[in-house]
Amino acid sequence: MSLDQVLARIDADLDQSIARLMDLLRIPSISTDPAFAKDCDHAADWLVDELSGLGFKASKRKTPGHPMVVAHADGPGRHLLFYGHYDVQPVDPLELWDNPPFEPRIEETADGKVIRARGASDDKGQLMTFVEACRAWIAINGSLPARLTILFEGEEESGSPSLVPFLRDNADELRAELALICDTGLFEDHIPAIVTMLRGLLAEEIVITGPDRDLHSGMYGGLARNPLHVLGDIIAGLHDEHGRVTLRGFYDGVPELPDEIRAQWQGLGFDHQKFLGAVGLSDPAGETDRTPLEMIWSRPTCEVNGVSGGYTGEGFKTVLPSQARAKISFRLVGDQDPEAIHRSFVEYVESMLPADCKAEFPLGHGAPASRMSINDPLFEQARKALSDEWGKPAAYVGCGGSIPIAGHFQDILGMDSILAGFGRDDDQIHSPNEKYALESFHKGIRSWARILATLT
Amino acid sequence: MSLDQVLARIDADLDQSIARLMDLLRIPSISTDPAFAKDCDHAADWLVDELSGLGFKASKRKTPGHPMVVAHADGPGRHLLFYGHYDVQPVDPLELWDNPPFEPRIEETADGKVIRARGASDDKGQLMTFVEACRAWIAINGSLPARLTILFEGEEESGSPSLVPFLRDNADELRAELALICDTGLFEDHIPAIVTMLRGLLAEEIVITGPDRDLHSGMYGGLARNPLHVLGDIIAGLHDEHGRVTLRGFYDGVPELPDEIRAQWQGLGFDHQKFLGAVGLSDPAGETDRTPLEMIWSRPTCEVNGVSGGYTGEGFKTVLPSQARAKISFRLVGDQDPEAIHRSFVEYVESMLPADCKAEFPLGHGAPASRMSINDPLFEQARKALSDEWGKPAAYVGCGGSIPIAGHFQDILGMDSILAGFGRDDDQIHSPNEKYALESFHKGIRSWARILATLT
Repeated sequence: MSLDQVLARIDADLDQSIARLMDLLRIPSISTDPAFAKDCDHAADWLVDELSGLGFKASKRKTPGHPMVVAHADGPGRHLLFYGHYDVQPVDPLELWDNPPFEPRIEETADGKVIRARGASDDKGQLMTFVEACRAWIAINGSLPARLTILFEGEEESGSPSLVPFLRDNADELRAELALICDTGLFEDHIPAIVTMLRGLLAEEIVITGPDRDLHSGMYGGLARNPLHVLGDIIAGLHDEHGRVTLRGFYDGVPELPDEIRAQWQGLGFDHQKFLGAVGLSDPAGETDRTPLEMIWSRPTCEVNGVSGGYTGEGFKTVLPSQARAKISFRLVGDQDPEAIHRSFVEYVESMLPADCKAEFPLGHGAPASRMSINDPLFEQARKALSDEWGKPAAYVGCGGSIPIAGHFQDILGMDSILAGFGRDDDQIHSPNEKYALESFHKGIRSWARILATLT
Repeated sequence: MSLDQVLARIDADLDQSIARLMDLLRIPSISTDPAFAKDCDHAADWLVDELSGLGFKASKRKTPGHPMVVAHADGPGRHLLFYGHYDVQPVDPLELWDNPPFEPRIEETADGKVIRARGASDDKGQLMTFVEACRAWIAINGSLPARLTILFEGEEESGSPSLVPFLRDNADELRAELALICDTGLFEDHIPAIVTMLRGLLAEEIVITGPDRDLHSGMYGGLARNPLHVLGDIIAGLHDEHGRVTLRGFYDGVPELPDEIRAQWQGLGFDHQKFLGAVGLSDPAGETDRTPLEMIWSRPTCEVNGVSGGYTGEGFKTVLPSQARAKISFRLVGDQDPEAIHRSFVEYVESMLPADCKAEFPLGHGAPASRMSINDPLFEQARKALSDEWGKPAAYVGCGGSIPIAGHFQDILGMDSILAGFGRDDDQIHSPNEKYALESFHKGIRSWARILATLT
C-alpha cells in the first residue's frame, strides 16, 4: 500500500467527491417532518447504492421510524464501526436562506470555499469524508486495511428513537473493537481534535404553584405569595458567590483533570476573550477558581435554560401569577450520578418552598458523562495521522455537549469511540445557510485515509 | 321630603329598575374592540335618554374614542359630580360562559339572587344604582336635593385615552365640590365601605442582554454569562429577609397608619386566613412586621408580574439565552415619588449587572398614591347613610389597586371623591359569568338615596 498514492487519488478525485456529496445534499432528508419520510428513505437507498458500489455488503434496515443503513466490508485487521447520520435539521425559517437549502453550491468566502446546503456539515459532509476515504483506499489498494462496519442513522436530528432498540437487537452484528464517529469539529476551527470527554446531561423542569389562580397584584400583592419571587430565590441560590453549584453532593464523582490533559490543554492557548468576544461577552462567568477550558469541557455546570410565568405580552398586567416555571439543565462529568443529583435538586427546591407553595418536577431524567479510555493504540495512531494531515498537533479535547451515540456504544456494544470531525464553529448547523468548508471536506477525506493507513 | 317614602318607592319599583338595567346590559358596549363601536355609541344614547327622562340636561359628547355622557340637574345645595362607566370588558373566552354574556338573566345562587351578564357589576349595575336612586328621589320629591353633574365614560376598560383631555377641556363645566364614584366593592362582601386610600403604581420592565445571540449551553454553559441567572439574582435581591423592598429610598414618604384608621381596621376583624385560603394559600408573605390589611391597603409593595427568557415550550432545549425579561410593579402609598423610585430601581438593577451584560428599561412610568381628605362632612354623612342601610358600621378602607379617575379628579378638577360601591369579591368582573348580587343592586340604590337625603 502507498498512502501517498491514496492521498494523490483523493486530490485528483476531489471534484467527483464534491459532486457525490452534492447529490446526497439534494435529498431533503428532514427526519422530524413526516412529509419528508420518502426523502429519508431515498437518502438511505442512495447510501446503500454508494457503499455497494464500493464493495460493501450494504442494506437498508427497517425501524419503526426512518431506516438504518448497515454495511460490512471484510478486511485483514481489526473490526471497526463507523457511525454517521444522513438525516438533517429542518430548514425553517426558510426566508433566511440566501439560496434554497437543498440546492447545494460552492461559494467563495473570506475564509475560503464552502459547500452551502442544509446538512453540508451536519452530518452529510462529514460522513462522506469517510466514504470517500474508503473509495480512494479501495481504488488504490483493491481492498480495505481492516474489517469495517458502517452504520448510518436517519433519526439523529429527531431524538434517535429507534437507535437503542436497533443497537440492542443487532448487537452481535454491530459490535466492533472501536467505533469511529465523524460528527464533531476542529478545535478553534483549525486544530484537529479527538473528543475524549463527553459531559452528561440532567434535564429538569420545575413548576411552582402558589395561589390556585392568577391574582390581581393590587388586591393581593404583598400579602399573597408570588411564585415568581420563589423562583427568583431558587435560581439565585443554585450557585454560590464562587460560581459553584450549591446542591448537596453535586461535586461527588467529579474528577480532577489528569495532569497530562491539563498540560496539553494549557498548550492549546485557548483564547477565552476571543471565544466570549465572538458572542458579545468579555468576562468569564462560572467557577472562579477554574480555567475557561475546564469550565466548558470538564467541569459540571448548572444553567437555567428557560423561565416563564405571569404576563409576558405587550404592555403591562398587574397579575400575581399562580405558577412560575423554569427549565434547568446540568452538564455532568466523571462519575456524577444523574439520579442522585435529581434527588438533590428536588430536595433543594423543596427546602426553598414556603409552606403553601408546591413544586412539580415533570422531567428529571439524564445521562451520565462518558470518557473514552484512550489506551487503545489507535487513539494515538489517529492523533498522529490527524497531526500529519493538518500540520499541527492534534488535541484530545473535551466536549461541552452530549453526544448520546458514544454513550450508547459504550453501554450497549461495550466499545469506546474515536470522535474526530472537521466542522467549524461557524458552520451554522441547525441554522439557515449551513455550510462546510471545502478544506474540511478535502482534508477530512485525507485524514480518514491516513487513519486507515495506520490500521495496516 | 321623606326618606322612607323614597326607600319604599325604590322597593316597589325594583322590578322596573332591574328591567332597565337589563336593557342596558343587552348592549354589548365592549370598548376595546372596534367592532363594537356602534354599541358603545348606543349605550351612550340609552343613558342620555334615561337621564333626560329624569329631567337632567343630558348630552352625548364626542371624543376621539367613545363618547362621554354628561348630564346636569339643578338643585338647592352643593354641587356634586357622579362618575361611572358604561363600557365593559371583552367576553373571551366565550365558551366559558354558561349563558350568552349579553342576555342578562336573574339566577338563584347559594348566596341569593344575582343578575348574570357582562357589565352587571363592572360598571353598569353599579352606575345604575345611582340613576335609580335619583329616579326615586325625583318621583317622590319632584327634584333633587343638590346640584348634580353626572359623567359616564365609555373607555374605562380600554385605558381611558380620552379622559384626561376631556376633563381638561371641560374642567369648568365638570368641577364640583366633591365627586361620587361607584366602581368599588363591599368589604368582605357584606360591610359597606368607602375607599379613602388608593395606592399608586410604578410599572417597570427590564430586558437583560448577555451574549448577543442564543448560545448552546453545552458549548458555552458555565463560562458564558447567563442572563436568566442575573435575573434570578435581581429578583431575589428585591426583598430582604423581612420582606422589605431593598431599593434605596423606597420607603421615603411612606406614612405610618394614623391611629384612628389603625383602630378602625383592627375593628374590622379581617380574616387573612380566609382571604388567603380562598385562593389556595395559607401563610402571609410580605413584610413580617406588618398586619395583613396594612400590606394590601396601606403598605407599598414590589411584585414581579411576569418573567420570560430562553426556551419555554414543550420538551427541552439546552439554550443559554441572549435575553431575560421581567415585568415588575410597585404599589405606592403616601408621598412615595414614582420617578425617584424608578431611578432607584435602575440604579439597583445596574448594580447587579456583570460588566458584560446590559439592561434596558422600556417602561418606568407611574402615578403616585392618592388619599382622600375626609374632612368634608359629606364623608361622615355618607358613612352613616351606608351604615344605616346595611345595618353595620361602614368602614373607611384602603384599596390595593389604582383607580386613576380619583387621581385625575384631584389633579385636574381639584376635588376629592367618595368611592362607594357594592361589588363582591366573587363578581367575576373581567372574567366569564360576571354577576352582580340583587342585594348589591337593591341596597346600592337605597344607599345612594340615603346619601342624597343627607344633602338636604
